[in-house]
Amino acid sequence: MLNWLIVDKIIKNALEEDMPYGDITTDLIIGSVHGSKNPVNNARAEFIVKEDGVIAGLDVAARVFELLDGEVLFTRLAKDGSYVQKGTVIAEITGHTATLLKGERTALNILQRMSGIATKTREFCKRVEGTGVQVADTRKTTPGMRMLEKYAVRMGGGSNHRYSLSDGVLIKDNHIKAAGSIKEAVKRVRKSIPHTIKIEVETETLEQVKEALEAGADIIMLDNMDIETMKKAVDITGGKAVIEASGNMSLEKVYDVALTGVNIISVGSLTHSVKALDISMKIKGN
Amino acid sequence: MLNWLIVDKIIKNALEEDMPYGDITTDLIIGSVHGSKNPVNNARAEFIVKEDGVIAGLDVAARVFELLDGEVLFTRLAKDGSYVQKGTVIAEITGHTATLLKGERTALNILQRMSGIATKTREFCKRVEGTGVQVADTRKTTPGMRMLEKYAVRMGGGSNHRYSLSDGVLIKDNHIKAAGSIKEAVKRVRKSIPHTIKIEVETETLEQVKEALEAGADIIMLDNMDIETMKKAVDITGGKAVIEASGNMSLEKVYDVALTGVNIISVGSLTHSVKALDISMKIKGN
Amino acid sequence: MLNWLIVDKIIKNALEEDMPYGDITTDLIIGSVHGSKNPVNNARAEFIVKEDGVIAGLDVAARVFELLDGEVLFTRLAKDGSYVQKGTVIAEITGHTATLLKGERTALNILQRMSGIATKTREFCKRVEGTGVQVADTRKTTPGMRMLEKYAVRMGGGSNHRYSLSDGVLIKDNHIKAAGSIKEAVKRVRKSIPHTIKIEVETETLEQVKEALEAGADIIMLDNMDIETMKKAVDITGGKAVIEASGNMSLEKVYDVALTGVNIISVGSLTHSVKALDISMKIKGN
Amino acid sequence: MLNWLIVDKIIKNALEEDMPYGDITTDLIIGSVHGSKNPVNNARAEFIVKEDGVIAGLDVAARVFELLDGEVLFTRLAKDGSYVQKGTVIAEITGHTATLLKGERTALNILQRMSGIATKTREFCKRVEGTGVQVADTRKTTPGMRMLEKYAVRMGGGSNHRYSLSDGVLIKDNHIKAAGSIKEAVKRVRKSIPHTIKIEVETETLEQVKEALEAGADIIMLDNMDIETMKKAVDITGGKAVIEASGNMSLEKVYDVALTGVNIISVGSLTHSVKALDISMKIKGN
Amino acid sequence: MLNWLIVDKIIKNALEEDMPYGDITTDLIIGSVHGSKNPVNNARAEFIVKEDGVIAGLDVAARVFELLDGEVLFTRLAKDGSYVQKGTVIAEITGHTATLLKGERTALNILQRMSGIATKTREFCKRVEGTGVQVADTRKTTPGMRMLEKYAVRMGGGSNHRYSLSDGVLIKDNHIKAAGSIKEAVKRVRKSIPHTIKIEVETETLEQVKEALEAGADIIMLDNMDIETMKKAVDITGGKAVIEASGNMSLEKVYDVALTGVNIISVGSLTHSVKALDISMKIKGN
Amino acid sequence: MLNWLIVDKIIKNALEEDMPYGDITTDLIIGSVHGSKNPVNNARAEFIVKEDGVIAGLDVAARVFELLDGEVLFTRLAKDGSYVQKGTVIAEITGHTATLLKGERTALNILQRMSGIATKTREFCKRVEGTGVQVADTRKTTPGMRMLEKYAVRMGGGSNHRYSLSDGVLIKDNHIKAAGSIKEAVKRVRKSIPHTIKIEVETETLEQVKEALEAGADIIMLDNMDIETMKKAVDITGGKAVIEASGNMSLEKVYDVALTGVNIISVGSLTHSVKALDISMKIKGN
Repeated sequence: MLNWLIVDKIIKNALEEDMPYGDITTDLIIGSVHGSKNPVNNARAEFIVKEDGVIAGLDVAARVFELLDGEVLFTRLAKDGSYVQKGTVIAEITGHTATLLKGERTALNILQRMSGIATKTREFCKRVEGTGVQVADTRKTTPGMRMLEKYAVRMGGGSNHRYSLSDGVLIKDNHIKAAGSIKEAVKRVRKSIPHTIKIEVETETLEQVKEALEAGADIIMLDNMDIETMKKAVDITGGKAVIEASGNMSLEKVYDVALTGVNIISVGSLTHSVKALDISMKIKGN
Repeated sequence: MLNWLIVDKIIKNALEEDMPYGDITTDLIIGSVHGSKNPVNNARAEFIVKEDGVIAGLDVAARVFELLDGEVLFTRLAKDGSYVQKGTVIAEITGHTATLLKGERTALNILQRMSGIATKTREFCKRVEGTGVQVADTRKTTPGMRMLEKYAVRMGGGSNHRYSLSDGVLIKDNHIKAAGSIKEAVKRVRKSIPHTIKIEVETETLEQVKEALEAGADIIMLDNMDIETMKKAVDITGGKAVIEASGNMSLEKVYDVALTGVNIISVGSLTHSVKALDISMKIKGN
Repeated sequence: MLNWLIVDKIIKNALEEDMPYGDITTDLIIGSVHGSKNPVNNARAEFIVKEDGVIAGLDVAARVFELLDGEVLFTRLAKDGSYVQKGTVIAEITGHTATLLKGERTALNILQRMSGIATKTREFCKRVEGTGVQVADTRKTTPGMRMLEKYAVRMGGGSNHRYSLSDGVLIKDNHIKAAGSIKEAVKRVRKSIPHTIKIEVETETLEQVKEALEAGADIIMLDNMDIETMKKAVDITGGKAVIEASGNMSLEKVYDVALTGVNIISVGSLTHSVKALDISMKIKGN
Repeated sequence: MLNWLIVDKIIKNALEEDMPYGDITTDLIIGSVHGSKNPVNNARAEFIVKEDGVIAGLDVAARVFELLDGEVLFTRLAKDGSYVQKGTVIAEITGHTATLLKGERTALNILQRMSGIATKTREFCKRVEGTGVQVADTRKTTPGMRMLEKYAVRMGGGSNHRYSLSDGVLIKDNHIKAAGSIKEAVKRVRKSIPHTIKIEVETETLEQVKEALEAGADIIMLDNMDIETMKKAVDITGGKAVIEASGNMSLEKVYDVALTGVNIISVGSLTHSVKALDISMKIKGN
Repeated sequence: MLNWLIVDKIIKNALEEDMPYGDITTDLIIGSVHGSKNPVNNARAEFIVKEDGVIAGLDVAARVFELLDGEVLFTRLAKDGSYVQKGTVIAEITGHTATLLKGERTALNILQRMSGIATKTREFCKRVEGTGVQVADTRKTTPGMRMLEKYAVRMGGGSNHRYSLSDGVLIKDNHIKAAGSIKEAVKRVRKSIPHTIKIEVETETLEQVKEALEAGADIIMLDNMDIETMKKAVDITGGKAVIEASGNMSLEKVYDVALTGVNIISVGSLTHSVKALDISMKIKGN
Repeated sequence: MLNWLIVDKIIKNALEEDMPYGDITTDLIIGSVHGSKNPVNNARAEFIVKEDGVIAGLDVAARVFELLDGEVLFTRLAKDGSYVQKGTVIAEITGHTATLLKGERTALNILQRMSGIATKTREFCKRVEGTGVQVADTRKTTPGMRMLEKYAVRMGGGSNHRYSLSDGVLIKDNHIKAAGSIKEAVKRVRKSIPHTIKIEVETETLEQVKEALEAGADIIMLDNMDIETMKKAVDITGGKAVIEASGNMSLEKVYDVALTGVNIISVGSLTHSVKALDISMKIKGN
């Protein structure tokens, strides 16, 4: 679910951020590629994973180099979504040395972050394996990177929550206050949103769960409830709405939450607190 | 060291990403603010820190709401760079409820990430306190967010490494190969770069440290050397160049590295592997 | 459901398109407003509707002038969504004559188009009044104007279909072919899309309607079916899915379609074939 | 008279509007094209005209697909400006099924609108055929689409009025008031505008026609005059200026206006009230 | 003839170019302005002209500071287009010292260039004073700055040639070759261009002048002709077309050219070879 | 030191500025290239230097045509940085006549300006040849063109001063006032800037030179000092800092300045007052 025209904008922006006036080291020592007739240094480099993890973003990394220089050859040796062992060479690139050096950091910054997200998502998914529960992301993403980060979550086996405020309804506390009741809030939304979009209501008490059900909510979010309360919420709902558990989910508690019978567990830290997967680009000569 | 025109672009981009077609929940239940003559819901909200940490990005968070709606009042109760305890209210905002709800996630996504970086940086700085060593960041930042992330490092007490490939020279392995020798590489760069910019050479052996010194490098980076080798490199250098230690720095090992006598320790994980500081925006009614 | 930061971009783009080198007539005869200390010509103008219709886009029209000149006063005398009679003054504006002349055409181009859409939508809604059927738009909008056009549809009493390819699933012929069956297509989508999004399947035969139902489609689109077939499709569905009728809907046939029992009728011509509502801006002197 | 760099911006903007987070149906069922090594579904599709009309925008439609995917083959079977019968296949496209599905709506939205304009323009031109009168457009275009819409008018046999406020002088009522007289207004403009640009004066009475003539206007616009008055204006002018008739021109009255002897008839509805030409893209398998 | 929305884009672009990561000197020593609650350094500065010349761009210079900081006060003490003596204080600005320092260079870069163009234009105009000949600019402007540079030419007393390839017709050698004859080239253009635009033909011989006249050219450009040939061209034309002399015009020869009877002399060096007017911003304390 | 993604933006912006609605002369007489199936006019053109000078920007000029039309062939016959004699053909281009005509002016506007800067820089460098002094540029560049202009300075043999306010520290009068002393100002900056960046202090008196030295400035700028004072400043410094002479440098005085022993002479007029190198594009037929 990537729009590559938007990916290009993200990459170009990153390369401008990293080179407002070119790469002064490379340009002066190795020379520039563009338009040059002179023989240039060519090189071959490998992308090596330095720790086990799930790969995400290889096509995006490849695109970084392509946007710098049309003549680069990027060979994928792994696929997005695959789990690879430490030491695996996941891609190989040949091209002008200058291009490789200029694109290296930007490509890795994207690839490592995306793979870090995919890897973390996989860990959460592993914990709830067999329960039938889906692990979903949130809108707690890095500004400007959401499309890539949500893609990475899918590569790790997770599912996506709404992409933005425009494509999912989530009725919160303050919406309810403004409308007067959950019922009224759901009604106001129902009659105008696209019929392709479901309505979710955030609840903090079992009382609210009941109200949301009666109001016809399609999805009920249980916000920061304890395990026992979640179980009761599942009972009350009786399958008449999808149930999403939310609030400071950790690897430790996610399995217990899954056992309560909820359908979806959303995890903010999948994207807001990410350890980059250790990947390096090693130039091997030409 | 922020250019606010660029900050505005980052925020606008984030708000478009989060609302390509508006906030359908808020717009339909509470109504839109813009151009409206009707009485609107007003609210007051607090930004509360849920764990101890260093604050960074309050002005940026404020700007998110200002760009959505000129009539919001954002009151800072803490300052960027200050270390605050769990439970501290760091800012208060009053304005249209709709504005508060629309800006909340984007503001927090930025503020939490920046504060997370500042907090992590502070930890590293604490470890080397008293050694006179500076903790510096790297170019391992999130695409499009580097200016904000490097600002956050400073707020945590760290210093910045070069901002981009355009404002610092770092001669690496492949540059040396292309030039034939460290000496030649330094020479090529020296004669054309701005006289305001220093030259740094990356070294992996003591032999290279010596060559770099002889070539007149202003800064020598010790890349992934062990403690003993670093000590020798410091001896060899004898104060004739600034020394930067680099390569998978952890909280565990940073103090030992500092004791080797290097001047700067650069830490990629300050920005590439960040735990968002837990901050929430709590609407308190009007 | 407008994101005003995007509205601003649309307006700025339109004003650049209309003035790549300024307004040479006004600038040379009346003078420019910006930065001027000299007394300037001021004027008052009225926006008058020249035919009955529904107003949509008044805030957007106001914004055109505000972006040109901070000191304009735009007074709304009607509200978006209201049906007004020929001759009604729907807004009044006072400000520098130069600003009024420069913004007039762009403001009217937007306001007339949006009001034209709202007026046309109202006609369709009137025809199906009492049937409980919703009139919805499509993605057949003008490039770059979709957010405004879909807003106008709502102002005319219609509802929105999905905003884009990203926020609604519509499984068509070719998707089915690629997947092998409706069942498989629905399955592939179900497991990865946000749980906030429903799945719609386009059908051309009653056989397909049954398959879609069995596959668990949330919404079934009846594409270009005749009245009798639509009735059967409604019977077959038995309330287990929302039904949308689609395909060359005209004012003539829409009521008969509504009587078949479908839930939603989507009408491409609401946005792809629009007669601008006749509105003029009359400068009344100062 | 297209600047293709601007066309590209219009298309990219449209494709972002239609896919802020990709095409979730196609991406999940058929898969993405970009960077993929896997065998993909290929398809061939035809663009078929469903009603008689003039084609405009084929190159733009082709460009939509090319920007999505470099490997598409778009074959033109008709030319912009040609009048085609219902049922004509005007283009054929082969490429990845995913690309065809993603670009279809955007390509058609542009092509149908442009062809609708060309077709409407042709109708007006047909009515005045033989009179030597030119049918011209106005600035009443869709924001952001003017270049394409004015191109479509030419394809329909019409001519263009000024492109923007920057490249034509049109002295209106309020300009005259500000200057004191038509004479003074013309004088102020004459001495500073490019010598490549003519001066047009809008008139509402024969008195004003005379004044405009005396002031040396190159073009005189007769605004909303009745047939008799127009004839007199033509007499008064005696060929010393070009005469443009303007104001709510309809197919019904345009021939009578042409007979008055005016040179140009400008018609706002050519672009502000357009019926899209019915064109569909039919995927034929591979 | 400035579109201020475009001016804002030029300025913002310049300020990003000059501060991709802020003003590190000022930010670290004086502090940032934005969002700050702390008392800040304020300053007053004067813009002083260091040599006689014509001022152009004061409003643009003011706008540089306004875009950096809403609280600056910029007082114009001269007007664009006025000729001032060395030592004149043309503007005064008060505001945060940081804002003044950050905006200084960008404001001066624009103001000095525009004033340099205005001053040079004035010199040319002075030389032809009394002859009735207009001095016009060309398209030989700095990429991205044309609107400002053509404005500056007007401030110096010159007139503008066409703004771009879109708003004036200039038929050159190769157009004639492609069409077969001047007559055919004029004909092709005449029937499709806006009736508000004149047709100019570039000629190199008297033969071509005659052909252009017969073809009905509105304007005839005499390209690099000598004085005698120009005189003959004027005779041949006999007032039936506007005559523009062009080609390496210098201050030395411009008066002689004016005496030939041509109407317009276009001078590329007005914008392509400009000596910046010496203007400095002097901070006077607070 | 060019970032070609930024070069592309500069060129596209220039081509939009020059063709907001296409090239009406060429499009109507020769026809458009894009998407055309018809045989088109092809042409060959030469870029000829009309006066001796240094070439800079050939690759950028080539890129102008490539962005307009992928099928152009641009052959470089000279290299950036080479000094060529009047009459030299520095490049040849073959392609569609329409492309050549559309790109000509924009390509030349860039190439002539860049070559003008390179040529002027060379003159300054020639004057100080043998003294070991470097001629450097300043930030007095044209808004939006700095990267290209600083590149041109290098092609002329000069060196670059800092690129922007973000990558070099220059402590001026007002920074010193705000800090209280040079010492304090240097200290504030030293502890936070990247260790890759040097610190420069602007001085107007020998007293300040001493203070700057004591404060540990890496570079001392002598601002507008006379020859004698400069000599004394050099003596005082005794090699402990790099010395830059600055302030209204002319070809006349630059040699005397060089003899004082300063290391660098910065010259604003290299970029702020440029005479375009006379280069023309001559179409030679096909």
